[in-house]
Amino acid sequence: MADFEVGEVARALHAVRDEWRDRQKRSREPGGREFPSRDALAGILEGLKGVLFPMRLGPPDLRHESEDFYVAHTLDAALHALYAQVLLELTFNARRDTTETVHVPTQVQAQATEVVRRFARALPGLRRLLDTDVLAAFHGDPAARSVDEVLLCYPGVLAMIHHRLAHALYGLELPLLARIVAELAHGQTGIDIHPGARIGAGFFIDHGTGVVIGETAVIGERVRVYQAVTLGAKRFPVDGHGVLQKGLPRHPVVEDDVVIYAGATILGRVTLGKGATIGGNVWITDDVAPGASVTQASLQKAPKVPA
Amino acid sequence: MADFEVGEVARALHAVRDEWRDRQKRSREPGGREFPSRDALAGILEGLKGVLFPMRLGPPDLRHESEDFYVAHTLDAALHALYAQVLLELTFNARRDTTETVHVPTQVQAQATEVVRRFARALPGLRRLLDTDVLAAFHGDPAARSVDEVLLCYPGVLAMIHHRLAHALYGLELPLLARIVAELAHGQTGIDIHPGARIGAGFFIDHGTGVVIGETAVIGERVRVYQAVTLGAKRFPVDGHGVLQKGLPRHPVVEDDVVIYAGATILGRVTLGKGATIGGNVWITDDVAPGASVTQASLQKAPKVPA
Amino acid sequence: MADFEVGEVARALHAVRDEWRDRQKRSREPGGREFPSRDALAGILEGLKGVLFPMRLGPPDLRHESEDFYVAHTLDAALHALYAQVLLELTFNARRDTTETVHVPTQVQAQATEVVRRFARALPGLRRLLDTDVLAAFHGDPAARSVDEVLLCYPGVLAMIHHRLAHALYGLELPLLARIVAELAHGQTGIDIHPGARIGAGFFIDHGTGVVIGETAVIGERVRVYQAVTLGAKRFPVDGHGVLQKGLPRHPVVEDDVVIYAGATILGRVTLGKGATIGGNVWITDDVAPGASVTQASLQKAPKVPA
Amino acid sequence: MADFEVGEVARALHAVRDEWRDRQKRSREPGGREFPSRDALAGILEGLKGVLFPMRLGPPDLRHESEDFYVAHTLDAALHALYAQVLLELTFNARRDTTETVHVPTQVQAQATEVVRRFARALPGLRRLLDTDVLAAFHGDPAARSVDEVLLCYPGVLAMIHHRLAHALYGLELPLLARIVAELAHGQTGIDIHPGARIGAGFFIDHGTGVVIGETAVIGERVRVYQAVTLGAKRFPVDGHGVLQKGLPRHPVVEDDVVIYAGATILGRVTLGKGATIGGNVWITDDVAPGASVTQASLQKAPKVPA
Amino acid sequence: MADFEVGEVARALHAVRDEWRDRQKRSREPGGREFPSRDALAGILEGLKGVLFPMRLGPPDLRHESEDFYVAHTLDAALHALYAQVLLELTFNARRDTTETVHVPTQVQAQATEVVRRFARALPGLRRLLDTDVLAAFHGDPAARSVDEVLLCYPGVLAMIHHRLAHALYGLELPLLARIVAELAHGQTGIDIHPGARIGAGFFIDHGTGVVIGETAVIGERVRVYQAVTLGAKRFPVDGHGVLQKGLPRHPVVEDDVVIYAGATILGRVTLGKGATIGGNVWITDDVAPGASVTQASLQKAPKVPA
Amino acid sequence: MADFEVGEVARALHAVRDEWRDRQKRSREPGGREFPSRDALAGILEGLKGVLFPMRLGPPDLRHESEDFYVAHTLDAALHALYAQVLLELTFNARRDTTETVHVPTQVQAQATEVVRRFARALPGLRRLLDTDVLAAFHGDPAARSVDEVLLCYPGVLAMIHHRLAHALYGLELPLLARIVAELAHGQTGIDIHPGARIGAGFFIDHGTGVVIGETAVIGERVRVYQAVTLGAKRFPVDGHGVLQKGLPRHPVVEDDVVIYAGATILGRVTLGKGATIGGNVWITDDVAPGASVTQASLQKAPKVPA
Repeated sequence: MADFEVGEVARALHAVRDEWRDRQKRSREPGGREFPSRDALAGILEGLKGVLFPMRLGPPDLRHESEDFYVAHTLDAALHALYAQVLLELTFNARRDTTETVHVPTQVQAQATEVVRRFARALPGLRRLLDTDVLAAFHGDPAARSVDEVLLCYPGVLAMIHHRLAHALYGLELPLLARIVAELAHGQTGIDIHPGARIGAGFFIDHGTGVVIGETAVIGERVRVYQAVTLGAKRFPVDGHGVLQKGLPRHPVVEDDVVIYAGATILGRVTLGKGATIGGNVWITDDVAPGASVTQASLQKAPKVPA
Repeated sequence: MADFEVGEVARALHAVRDEWRDRQKRSREPGGREFPSRDALAGILEGLKGVLFPMRLGPPDLRHESEDFYVAHTLDAALHALYAQVLLELTFNARRDTTETVHVPTQVQAQATEVVRRFARALPGLRRLLDTDVLAAFHGDPAARSVDEVLLCYPGVLAMIHHRLAHALYGLELPLLARIVAELAHGQTGIDIHPGARIGAGFFIDHGTGVVIGETAVIGERVRVYQAVTLGAKRFPVDGHGVLQKGLPRHPVVEDDVVIYAGATILGRVTLGKGATIGGNVWITDDVAPGASVTQASLQKAPKVPA
Repeated sequence: MADFEVGEVARALHAVRDEWRDRQKRSREPGGREFPSRDALAGILEGLKGVLFPMRLGPPDLRHESEDFYVAHTLDAALHALYAQVLLELTFNARRDTTETVHVPTQVQAQATEVVRRFARALPGLRRLLDTDVLAAFHGDPAARSVDEVLLCYPGVLAMIHHRLAHALYGLELPLLARIVAELAHGQTGIDIHPGARIGAGFFIDHGTGVVIGETAVIGERVRVYQAVTLGAKRFPVDGHGVLQKGLPRHPVVEDDVVIYAGATILGRVTLGKGATIGGNVWITDDVAPGASVTQASLQKAPKVPA
Repeated sequence: MADFEVGEVARALHAVRDEWRDRQKRSREPGGREFPSRDALAGILEGLKGVLFPMRLGPPDLRHESEDFYVAHTLDAALHALYAQVLLELTFNARRDTTETVHVPTQVQAQATEVVRRFARALPGLRRLLDTDVLAAFHGDPAARSVDEVLLCYPGVLAMIHHRLAHALYGLELPLLARIVAELAHGQTGIDIHPGARIGAGFFIDHGTGVVIGETAVIGERVRVYQAVTLGAKRFPVDGHGVLQKGLPRHPVVEDDVVIYAGATILGRVTLGKGATIGGNVWITDDVAPGASVTQASLQKAPKVPA
Repeated sequence: MADFEVGEVARALHAVRDEWRDRQKRSREPGGREFPSRDALAGILEGLKGVLFPMRLGPPDLRHESEDFYVAHTLDAALHALYAQVLLELTFNARRDTTETVHVPTQVQAQATEVVRRFARALPGLRRLLDTDVLAAFHGDPAARSVDEVLLCYPGVLAMIHHRLAHALYGLELPLLARIVAELAHGQTGIDIHPGARIGAGFFIDHGTGVVIGETAVIGERVRVYQAVTLGAKRFPVDGHGVLQKGLPRHPVVEDDVVIYAGATILGRVTLGKGATIGGNVWITDDVAPGASVTQASLQKAPKVPA
Repeated sequence: MADFEVGEVARALHAVRDEWRDRQKRSREPGGREFPSRDALAGILEGLKGVLFPMRLGPPDLRHESEDFYVAHTLDAALHALYAQVLLELTFNARRDTTETVHVPTQVQAQATEVVRRFARALPGLRRLLDTDVLAAFHGDPAARSVDEVLLCYPGVLAMIHHRLAHALYGLELPLLARIVAELAHGQTGIDIHPGARIGAGFFIDHGTGVVIGETAVIGERVRVYQAVTLGAKRFPVDGHGVLQKGLPRHPVVEDDVVIYAGATILGRVTLGKGATIGGNVWITDDVAPGASVTQASLQKAPKVPA
């Protein structure tokens, strides 16, 4: 009857894995290769969202008089769960550089503890920053009727909660955890902010689907962007030998109070000056002066002047 | 060992919450502040989808001869669950305007009952409208092989089911519930339709990711749009004092039988005349005549004539 | 009290369903109309992802020495679950063409068995192809630190795992199952690849939101595309009677080593020659020569020469 | 590292299974051997309990005005689920008697349909009987404060709901389904009533742990028993060849209004006359006259009279 | 095809419910009749067990340094959940005595608050008492190797945790909640202790299946009982008119340091004197002197002396 | 409003825990005190039941041709999960004897590996033994219609599956894991068999509620017992100083082919000779000769002879 040759297929898959591991110079020794878990981080984020905004993103039946019990317990659980993931990233890094078995040394545990402690200390400041983002969304969208609605419904706010936490992890040299946190938001909102991007207070993304913000972007205060805006790199800088040079500033600098309408693409280490307005769908690879207003129309006209 | 100073961090978070509440003039009294729940609405939507299309979106083992039992019971449960959410929105609105404790008065209950009853009565008409959307998708995509496939697979159809329900709630002055219903679809499909948009029969969105349709948009019958199309506002109208004027018509009017290809951006209260075709990626801020065909090429040529 | 007239609404919904079924010439006989299930396919995909990449996408506590047990058992379960879905698609097709009751004949079972067996045999080859995609992502993004990170975090890699499986199903004449597999990825990543698209080894999609790749697109090896790229059809070809002609080649051919930056739109059966570079946001409806570099600037300049 | 020789153990287990199947003359052909499912029946029972007592054992938020929708839908779903289990038992019986592959013939389906229909028709009568059991519990226990409490809390009432349903299945010649229903109650309450036992209206079991009532027991109306009471068989009757004779009456007949206190053991086809009282822990293998009162004391005294 | 006449059966069930409600003089008005929930109490008990023994019955990964956060948060949640159930019992009692619609008055809320507060204050004392029960189990069973094992494994300890909480609820005049708590343990352990029973410190039940302890039983300190022991009532006392007199002492008094072996049955308001030993399976309806040892043998011999 | 003084109660509970830990000389250092988990063992048992009887207790849709994949994978997962629990018991034992922090040394890991390997090797033999128990149940109960029914429905068979596994763990010096496995069955069936009891092939427990079998009981082949049978200890042997002497034989020896009817109590290190029959409810503290038949009647008559 229905015989799908599972044994043979499994053997063939085994052979392909062996090929890959040989080519990648991976050991085939017994043992697991533990790795941070997307599901675990999703759970941690749920906890942290409740810790930051207990009456809106915490459990539906929470009461004011119990907030502190809930916050302390949930924070405690989330931080210990995060600690386990931090250990995994630190250990994985160590393992990547060697073929020997790696035990989790006391030193790595101490490092993980210190990292989590610093992350925890940063949370109150992140909440304060996020309050500015919530207010920016509330004031920036005439349809918004309350800050509560903004917290609950706006994908741009969800993306910023993830980003501010991811950026803190990035700053603590946990790029992998940071990336997973960012991708969790990307999957839910279509907004893709690299954890390395530095974003000032009062940032508001409206609609949001298709927004991409690159690793070395620097964004000032009270900036507003719409869907499908890209703050990207022109090309990856290479050194004299054609090798990619990582870490060089390659994404735009956006100064305070800039507005960027839907579909605009800003590429390279250009600066959008304070208060500039960038129209929809425009393509920009040069600096824009403070207060300037760039639209597709102005761009189409511009070349005609010298022509 | 691993001590993350949870107590101190919790205290600091408490202080930040107090700051925020003082600044927002929120009470710190004991008690909960109940709010409509995204999860509850997700459950209600699952029920209503089964009620509207029992043999396709209802339980997999449903049989024709049991449809009515399933529909009546599921509708009953969904409406009572919706009633609870309606009470929450109505009460929340009342609370927002006062610092006093608000009890749910009999009057609010009567209002909620009436609203849910009217919503229920609208459902058969919505099903009829959705049938036209399903047929439009089936006829509009040469790859579609059956209407069943369209109902099951097409993100544009899912978005329209949510939109037609959300629009009904919006019309019943429940903007928050309507918004949550819309955002549930936005998160799953990348299609962002404001619940206020008025959309005629036989509407089809293909691919869909990145589509944005604004609150005062008016769309005729048999309209077709592709991914990343924006029907947006040019800017928010302000009155003489620079205050945003809400509710003014500020999004496009799209007449019957218009087709809008991917990436096109239509901004402001312009009219796309009956049967017009809008090419991909074009940027339009003026009226388009009925039957006209606008493409990027035609736009690029246009200015050259007078130049 | 709260009486929502459920009985009346249910009766009205019944009437609308009858209308629809009459118009669609559907039988109203008792019995179910079984259809492939999105949830079932989601479960099968989870299994197959673990089968293809057991140590990264399988259970978190898997160990090398147990890989083969896990792979064989999970593969066996996934294939039998797939077999049930294949039966449903084959039977549904048979039913669509007749109003008589259809029993699952022995012949359909034999066909389903054969199809699943061929799908199973293809899996090792798909894993080998996916390894090239993973390496392409790793080498194509300077931020990637390990192939593991790429497998776990990158939406473009997730989309390709789904696509390569969906394409295999498409090749086995199971377009509906293939479509569901593709839409599962579309919903999670915003990347919409039609299962019919033929894509060579080492394909990398960065960021990805808004990418659309059409049914007859042909993509060579080592191609790289960014978010919001469309490889679409100009228009649907019609025959002399205005009837859509299905299956004709109508999407681009992209040769080896092409790079296509964000937001570019390539429409129709054009060819992008080997090694070409397509800039962001450009709109292309003609062939591009091998090695050429097309940017918005070059396009804007181009018309000026003859002007 | 940790190598548990799984492959070898699995092979040895395979060998033991083969031994067993050979000895039991079971086929080793491919294919499943489907069997009624304990979990499926547990789900069906949950549904039927809600159908019988919607406001107490149905969903917590059910309202009077929606009872009928809930009852019809839940009943429909439960009966169709039961139908599937009935098919499994009927088919299993057919398979047990042959080594050939058995297909589910139309005849078996017709039989299953008829059996489920008769079961359904019996439900209103069972509800009426169970109402008498609930009242008996309410009146029989001075601690009971309401019939609602009795339905919700009393293990004896739970056992009787299961028994009356199991007895109906037993009467429809589905002994295996009946047995599973009985064992589900046994596991939860420690009360073991064989589905074959015939029990009149108004039966009350208090405390209940350890009660055993045998297959051919016959119990009149308004009988009350306490924990650890056994109504058993003295020994199994054998025919002239020492072969067990199934189906012969071998358990007690208990007439109306009898009370049996905790730990009493009544064995064999004896009759406890109308209104008799059986004291705790007594051991009875002979008839008891109507109205008689048997206690340990009376038994201990009894032999002394003739001595 | 499979038509089970669901509509007719549902109608017949409706008729039976109406009969019952008429006979029970229950209103058929719309609206729900809320009642305490077994599932809700099961959840509350899980929380309280963790609150009382955080490192053994709390979450598996709890750490000493986080105990207080866990305890405060879990206690807070459990008490608020209990408050909701208390409201239900108090309201149900009020409704039982009237046919009018009952709103939950402020007074009932105040009463519920006070009751929960008193229950909460009792918890530290209950933990101290339960510590004596745990030690009694540890010292009473030579097989026990640690107090942790006793807490985790012994059904007698589980039954006592439930009983001490149920007895507190009973003392607060919440007999229905108390009963549900007791039945939850009864179902899991086969040990049936009425919430009204007064039990001193250091009580140990070994094995436990079939133990029944009645409402007015009074048990001293350091008492030990084995499986299937009954501390029951001889008969229910009636007044001059044959009406059951509730609340009269009708179960045994067991003084300090008594041991009762398996299967013994002690009935009526008799006293087992300090330090007495009751052998297995004996039947006792009279007082036993302090220090006495009663066995079946001694009982069998006893009557012979006077004979 | 509803203030339950959670902070104060939590502090009081903290104080009680400190008291207890001081009295028990437990450390209050930070860190967890891990302990084997009842839930984890329940999961392991589910796996092992499927491994032992894949077509009956494994997944409902398993097919013969996939048995080995399922068995190998499930066994592998169950053994690794068991290994983690074994480590916990071994480490807990080590910790119990010291107040110092205990790390899991390599030696303990080696010991755990060896123990699990020996447990795995024992499984085929256990399956063979359980086959004899299944046959005994099938032949011992005239109501049983197939061995499948026996495996699925009979609590006595479930109890024996648990016991044979628990006894293997007990023999490997893991008394705590063994105990948890036994209590899992006790909770579901009311049958309490100490893991130390040695039980021969073909053992059958009918009905089962209330059966207790002690640690040093020795039971031969083809023995049958009914509900509420106790094989217990008369009293715990003490040495000259009144200290309990653990491990001495103190429970009955039951030779081959003995039958013990419901409620019989056999206490102490007595021997029931081959083929003896013990009647219901009898109380035995002396040896019974091979082939003898002891009933309550014979016991009551017995003393009369010498009297």
